Order: sequence, then structure tokens, then C-alpha cells
Amino acid sequence: LALLFFSEDDDPVAWSAALRARLPDLDIRVWPAIGSPEEIEAALVWLPPPGLLASLPRLRAIFSLGAGVDAMLADPTLPDLPLCRMVDPSLTATMAEYVLACVLWYHRQFDVYARQQAERRWKLHLPGPAAATRVGVMGLGVLGSATAATLAAHGFTVRGWSRTPRAVAGVECFAGQPGLGTFLAGADILVCLLPLTRETEDILNAALLDRLPEGARLIQVGRGRQLVEADLLAALDTGRLVHATLDVVREEPLPPAHPFWTHPRIRLTPHSASYCQPATGAATVAENIRRLRDGRALLHVVDRQRGY
Amino acid sequence: LALLFFSEDDDPVAWSAALRARLPDLDIRVWPAIGSPEEIEAALVWLPPPGLLASLPRLRAIFSLGAGVDAMLADPTLPDLPLCRMVDPSLTATMAEYVLACVLWYHRQFDVYARQQAERRWKLHLPGPAAATRVGVMGLGVLGSATAATLAAHGFTVRGWSRTPRAVAGVECFAGQPGLGTFLAGADILVCLLPLTRETEDILNAALLDRLPEGARLIQVGRGRQLVEADLLAALDTGRLVHATLDVVREEPLPPAHPFWTHPRIRLTPHSASYCQPATGAATVAENIRRLRDGRALLHVVDRQRGY
Repeated sequence: LALLFFSEDDDPVAWSAALRARLPDLDIRVWPAIGSPEEIEAALVWLPPPGLLASLPRLRAIFSLGAGVDAMLADPTLPDLPLCRMVDPSLTATMAEYVLACVLWYHRQFDVYARQQAERRWKLHLPGPAAATRVGVMGLGVLGSATAATLAAHGFTVRGWSRTPRAVAGVECFAGQPGLGTFLAGADILVCLLPLTRETEDILNAALLDRLPEGARLIQVGRGRQLVEADLLAALDTGRLVHATLDVVREEPLPPAHPFWTHPRIRLTPHSASYCQPATGAATVAENIRRLRDGRALLHVVDRQRGY
Repeated sequence: LALLFFSEDDDPVAWSAALRARLPDLDIRVWPAIGSPEEIEAALVWLPPPGLLASLPRLRAIFSLGAGVDAMLADPTLPDLPLCRMVDPSLTATMAEYVLACVLWYHRQFDVYARQQAERRWKLHLPGPAAATRVGVMGLGVLGSATAATLAAHGFTVRGWSRTPRAVAGVECFAGQPGLGTFLAGADILVCLLPLTRETEDILNAALLDRLPEGARLIQVGRGRQLVEADLLAALDTGRLVHATLDVVREEPLPPAHPFWTHPRIRLTPHSASYCQPATGAATVAENIRRLRDGRALLHVVDRQRGY
């Protein structure tokens, strides 16, 4: 079976090695050296150019390298074949690690020291113990609850919020509109890990940010369309927020003229918080390739109506 | 007993509360509201102005808020009284936390993304798992071995180096000149936690930095005089090092005209890595105040010849 590999972000060498360790006779064709298109029966891809998958006449299944497939679904030429999203523990572990890195950075005042360095100013600001820093995690699904648990294990005081009530060990949980105000009032650092739905679009707006403590920080690792960008800029101007780390934005890549690039209190990362490690993700892909060979039902097939 | 408190960095309110919780009748005089100088019998201080302690005629003991007392010893008017350094688990915990924050920041490419943001560039660089990032810790004393263990617990591949052989669980240990080259060649991130001695002064020099892998990063949390500053700038120019975080420098505060302030690949923090939390440090101080009252021997008295 020949597999097309396409990604500008993932390492084809590491993925090929990890897949061959599980399927020694797998024929992997790394774009653009794909050989004869009619030999390709499966594709393992991230953000493929529109039309690429439609150009493979004998394609039978599409495997996404990421958990989100909204960009692929937006391609009108996407073939009507089983489309499988990535499900892998490394997606959760990398997200928890990214958020921990950001929370430690804020807790230890690295944002303050970066501003001081620009002003040639040498001045200590000693934080309290981790327990004195209150982190609020919005969204308690797989990523949110694992991230909240990681932060709590580090000694931070963690509260969580979700639409419907949830329980996470070591985390004070709030739910729905009635719990939102109390949740926000105790979040020195707000982490957004909500899924994008009709209810969460534009949820990070002026009304919500105004309920945070004065001088709060934001870590946005949900989806770009949840944040009202003008409201973030206003909250940074008034001092309600003192800093924001944005891993997702409304338009990715962020347009070159966008004010976020040069804002002294905004840190950008290019949608890098959660990603799949080849060493573990290859197990998911290899299992689906075996199923495809054997004519069995594939795992993690996307419901195209629902979008995930 | 009246205790003088002086520090421009530590919080007098938190320290007073933590000390009164242990010694409810302690008379704490926070500078500059010290009342009558002849009533003061003990001083809890960090970087007191030269001459302040000498102006207290009935002073009997000096307690340092920090572990290092070299600045105080440099004051020629320092009274010849017992001088006690701070010994507290929070000094170790805050150091390990600071280094973990820096290692995560490098592992997740935040230094690369900061440069990209300045260039308005949106480009992913997906790191391998934590185990693929090799951290080398120089100095395996109390702070170094605890920091190495914290990093290993996070999944990083950690190696340690010390002058004489040491063992730390989960850490590959090297010792002395014979082990130094191998140690350095496998350190993608080098952490310096060595004490300052005749042998470690200027140890972070061109010869040492040249033995690191191409594109390494440095976290300097030892002492300023260990780093040959011109050699660091040269290593950043050639690309041997791609970034350095410096918490200590040869002259603190760093002089305003120093090139480190504006270097795009140097991050400065104002000697903030390790500090004492009042909640735990107050126990050490309260014990010594009790001993002073009762005429018993004080703990952690500095040997002024040795300097610590």
C-alpha cells in the first residue's frame, strides 16, 4: 500500500521511521516525490494544498496529522472518502506542557522582566509560592482537564469552568453562566481551552475580560474566533490585562499588517501548542492502515456534518 | 526583642505576618520606621545600606534574607557579630522552578518564536518529545542536584557535571576535567549552577562554549564572575550558542550602557531565580531569634574567612 505524506510542519523523516517500525513494507511517498499518483491509496496530511487529494484517482482514505480538520473540510475539492482525525496522547501532553511553560513564565514574571530589559531596568519582583497564583482554565474536555491537573500538580491554585458541570481532582470547578463570574474573578491567569461552537465564538470579549482581576494575564490556546481582538487590545490598554499569549488567531497565518505582531504586551506563537509526536501518533495511523488493507472499519472517522 | 527588617526586594508585610505567626510578641521594625535604634537587638536584612547595621549600638545578631552574604561582607563597617545566612527549602524549590521555566521555554522554541514575531513571521517548529532535549547541569550541590532531578522528572534527558563525582537518580553524571568534554558535547541546553570559586571564575569561556553542540542555549544561574562576557557575545555571533538567559552578571545591577540589555539573543532577569518564601523562611529566622533570646548557639553562622 502506498501512502502519501504531506506536511509543511511535521517531519517526514521522523514520521517515515515511526511508521516503518510498525509497517516495514509500507510504501511512503513524501510530497513532492510521490511517484505515480494512481498507486497512492492513502494520505497522511496536514494542510494539503487544495486539489492535491482530488488528484489521486485511487485514494481510499485520508488521515489527518492534526486533531482539527476544519481547514481540510473547507476545501471544496476534498474527495468524499473516510477522513480520520488524529487521536493521540501526545496531543494532550504537548498542550499541557505548553500551558505549563506559559504559566511558569507569568508566575516568575518573565513578561515583566522583558519589559524591564527594554527599559534597561534591573528590579526584582519576587512572586509568592505557586499556590498564590490562581489559574483559571476554561474548557474541561480532554485537553482542558489534563492541563488543569498538570498545573495543580505543580502547586498552582487551579479553577476550571465548563458549560456543563465537570469534576477534576485538585481543581475547583464552576459551570455555566451562573458560575462564570466567580470563576473569572479568581483567575490571575486565564487559559482558554474551549472548543469552537456557536456559544464560544467571541466569548473572550470585553464583558468577560472585565470580570478578571486587575492585572490578569491571558493564555489563548482555544480557537482564534473565540477572541474579539479589539476587546483584547482595549483590555491591555486599560491594564485589566497586563499580557496575553496567543497561540491561535482569527486569521492564520496572522496578516503582516496586524497590530498583534508589534504589541509589547502580546506574545504570539504559530498554533504550536498541541501537536502529534510521530513516535506515538504513528501507532494510530498504522492501525488504520492495517484496517484499510483488511477492509475493516477505520477509527476516528470525522462526521462531516458535525465537523469533528 | 526588637528586630530590624530591611529589604528593597522582600515583602515586609508577608515577612512580618510569617514571623508573628511563630513569635507573636516579636517587635518588628520595618525600615525606615525603626523607632529607637538602641532597642534593636537583631536584624533581618537583604542588601542593607552600608553603615546601617553599624548604627545600631545594641545589635547582637544579623540574619540574611538570602543565602549569599558576599555583598554584606564587602561592607567595611559591618559589625563583628554573628552573621547567619538563610537556609530554607524554598531557595531550592524556586531555583528548580526558574530553571524548569527556562528549559520549557527553550524546548518549546519560545526564543525562536520571539524572533519570528519581530520579523512578522508565522512558522511552526515542532520539537521532539522532552526526552529528545538534552539538558546539562553544571554543579551538583543542593541546588544543582534538585534542579537536575526536577528536569528529569519532566522527561528531559539530563546529564550533570561536578568537580568531584556525584550521583543523582535519573541523571547521567560526569566529573572533573576528564568528563567535561563528553558532558558538554551532549548539552543542547547548558545550566550553570556552580558555586563561585577560584576554579569556576571565568569557567564559562570560549574554550568551554566551543565544546557545546552547535545551536546550544545557556541558562546562567550561578554567579556573574563565572561568565566571560565577551566570549558569550562571540559564541552568539558564530551561532555556537543561539540564546542565553542570564540571571546573574558580573556587575549587578547591570550598568545601563552594557551591550547585554539590547542583545536580541540574551534574556536578562535581575538575580531572581532563587529566593526565600516568607512562609517557610520565617521558621529558620524564628528559631534563631529563640536561640538568641535563650543565649544558645545560632544556626547557619557564616565563616567570614570562607565567605559562606
